[in-house]
Amino acid sequence: MALKFEILKKSGKSRLGKLYTKHGEVNTPAFMPVGTCGTVKAMMPESVALAGAEILLGNTYHLMLRPGADLVEKMGGLHKFMNWDKPILTDSGGFQVMSLSSLRKISEEGVEFKSHVDGKKFFLSPEESIKIQHKLDSNITMAFDECTPYPSPYEKCASSMKLSMRWAERSKKAFVDRNGYGIFGIQQGNVFKDLREQSAEALRKIGFDGYAIGGLAIGEGQEKMFEVLDYAPSMLPEDKPRYLMGVGRPDDIVGAVLRGVDMFDCVMPTRSGRTSQAFTKYGTINIRNARHRQDPRPLEEGCDCPLCTHYSRAYIHHLQKCQEVLAVMLLSWHNVRYYERLMQGIREALAKDTLDDFVSEFYANQQKGDIEPL
Amino acid sequence: MALKFEILKKSGKSRLGKLYTKHGEVNTPAFMPVGTCGTVKAMMPESVALAGAEILLGNTYHLMLRPGADLVEKMGGLHKFMNWDKPILTDSGGFQVMSLSSLRKISEEGVEFKSHVDGKKFFLSPEESIKIQHKLDSNITMAFDECTPYPSPYEKCASSMKLSMRWAERSKKAFVDRNGYGIFGIQQGNVFKDLREQSAEALRKIGFDGYAIGGLAIGEGQEKMFEVLDYAPSMLPEDKPRYLMGVGRPDDIVGAVLRGVDMFDCVMPTRSGRTSQAFTKYGTINIRNARHRQDPRPLEEGCDCPLCTHYSRAYIHHLQKCQEVLAVMLLSWHNVRYYERLMQGIREALAKDTLDDFVSEFYANQQKGDIEPL
Repeated sequence: MALKFEILKKSGKSRLGKLYTKHGEVNTPAFMPVGTCGTVKAMMPESVALAGAEILLGNTYHLMLRPGADLVEKMGGLHKFMNWDKPILTDSGGFQVMSLSSLRKISEEGVEFKSHVDGKKFFLSPEESIKIQHKLDSNITMAFDECTPYPSPYEKCASSMKLSMRWAERSKKAFVDRNGYGIFGIQQGNVFKDLREQSAEALRKIGFDGYAIGGLAIGEGQEKMFEVLDYAPSMLPEDKPRYLMGVGRPDDIVGAVLRGVDMFDCVMPTRSGRTSQAFTKYGTINIRNARHRQDPRPLEEGCDCPLCTHYSRAYIHHLQKCQEVLAVMLLSWHNVRYYERLMQGIREALAKDTLDDFVSEFYANQQKGDIEPL
Repeated sequence: MALKFEILKKSGKSRLGKLYTKHGEVNTPAFMPVGTCGTVKAMMPESVALAGAEILLGNTYHLMLRPGADLVEKMGGLHKFMNWDKPILTDSGGFQVMSLSSLRKISEEGVEFKSHVDGKKFFLSPEESIKIQHKLDSNITMAFDECTPYPSPYEKCASSMKLSMRWAERSKKAFVDRNGYGIFGIQQGNVFKDLREQSAEALRKIGFDGYAIGGLAIGEGQEKMFEVLDYAPSMLPEDKPRYLMGVGRPDDIVGAVLRGVDMFDCVMPTRSGRTSQAFTKYGTINIRNARHRQDPRPLEEGCDCPLCTHYSRAYIHHLQKCQEVLAVMLLSWHNVRYYERLMQGIREALAKDTLDDFVSEFYANQQKGDIEPL
């Protein structure tokens, strides 16, 4: 196999693992910050690494529009272009074509769509998506798929899933095997168990380096999502990494790890950084709130990010009020660090066989809420 | 004297010096990046220091409005509040009251004005300005002054200058002398030589730790400014630092150093960073320009900033097109680094008695213009 994955330890359905790529190792369960346009928004790549990220997600859809895959390839690939020498996973563009572009025409061959940037027409097929991801030099290529919204009728989900499975086969065929690179298939089927099983079976038959659970976190809510996650991961091969796409909030991630998921990505830490929202072990706080105006205390006691080490809540509140870029820079860094510390905590607990304690404490702290105002 | 200044070497009118403050030394000629609202826009303070800055300028006007001097004092002063442990100079607020606020009422006592943020009324006098600067814990306090626009009639410049000199005396009286802290007087007189001389005489009589040349770079153009700088610096005490406020472009700075100026501040490096303009030894370039789209070369060959070390012009062009914050972060860093490298070059040339060569090469390079497109 082109992408080696080791499971080091198990606890219930949860797994402590390690993924080996050409650009280094990824300890799992892992969280991938999202670098949509070739940058994790408002962060230097050095800071993303310092925050603990071992792998990034890049968006095929955005990068094919700007600056274009050919240019990235000419510049030596995405790692070099964006100055990130650790592993990169790229999505296939399928999800963004559905959610961002306009005037889509889906056929067996692929999807024709108009760019959300300038209205220019583009075409994506499994072959084209894989080719682009190769040009980006992505360590983990995702199969091209279609994703149904929630809720969608059973028949629609069934036919969409089947199309995605035919595309998965074409994706695998188009993928060029290289050492330290791999391709993941994506399970679809919306919230229907039998469709998820059919999808998993189709993917297993094709054979992938890892398996994603797609089509969740699209409005179904955590309860419904966990219902699917109660069965979906175990339908996928035990010895391969399982990746829950686009998830999620910290408690989504903890719940999904307990259900056997190994990898996550989400824009939430950086997007929240741009709306003054911070994740802390006592839940989220919004630094815009007037109660922080004179507060000399750090955002989160015990956090080792630059924001919590060097600055008061009062300062970040002030920056935010003056619409200073530094507020976004520091909050994004803190939030990514929060997510990566959460994953480190999970991995350490798995290593020490104390995951249950870790999870109880996590929920207890989250419910406590932020420290008292001064 | 509360603020020690040494002149280590002279070359023509230019001086190599060192200023000692409670928060460390400043090698002169020095450039001070501007941290208007308690942050050098889009830069971590660590990056500002890495870029070579040894002292920052903070704006009394902006900080008194937001978050307020009392809050900054309560948070341990501006150094601690903004996580910058090196020297800070604060302006007096006089210039911003004139240029930013509305509904000003000037009297002998001081200036009543409305905040440009929320229209709230404020009052600034010499005593109030100095008190605020003390609360900010500024290492170099500036005397409170009034500044005439360009052009202004002689009589108006004369009476304004005289008011500023009476305010300078009150400022000095209000200043609390402490070791490692000092106060600078500000020479006014617009472009009139006799007024500049009268102003210098008044300031010398009061006695300051340093002397600023105010009321320039307000639209009179470089030629006119250099005419004033041909005589103004030598009117000020030889053994004290001379600071040209709000200047300027790289060639303004080089010209002013040749005329005996030791200190500078300007928003240009960071403001330009927000409009995609970069300073290089071959002049300015705008990275938005389409000719950079596929250019794998660094912005400036030989520059040691992160932008030039790790990224291509093509990447910065791409970031800028996608309106990514990282473009502003990297360009601001590069520009501040450019300014600080210029000052380092000037200081090294002064130390080696090669300032003439340095200046000739500087102008020759600037005229060469940017490298050829690919």
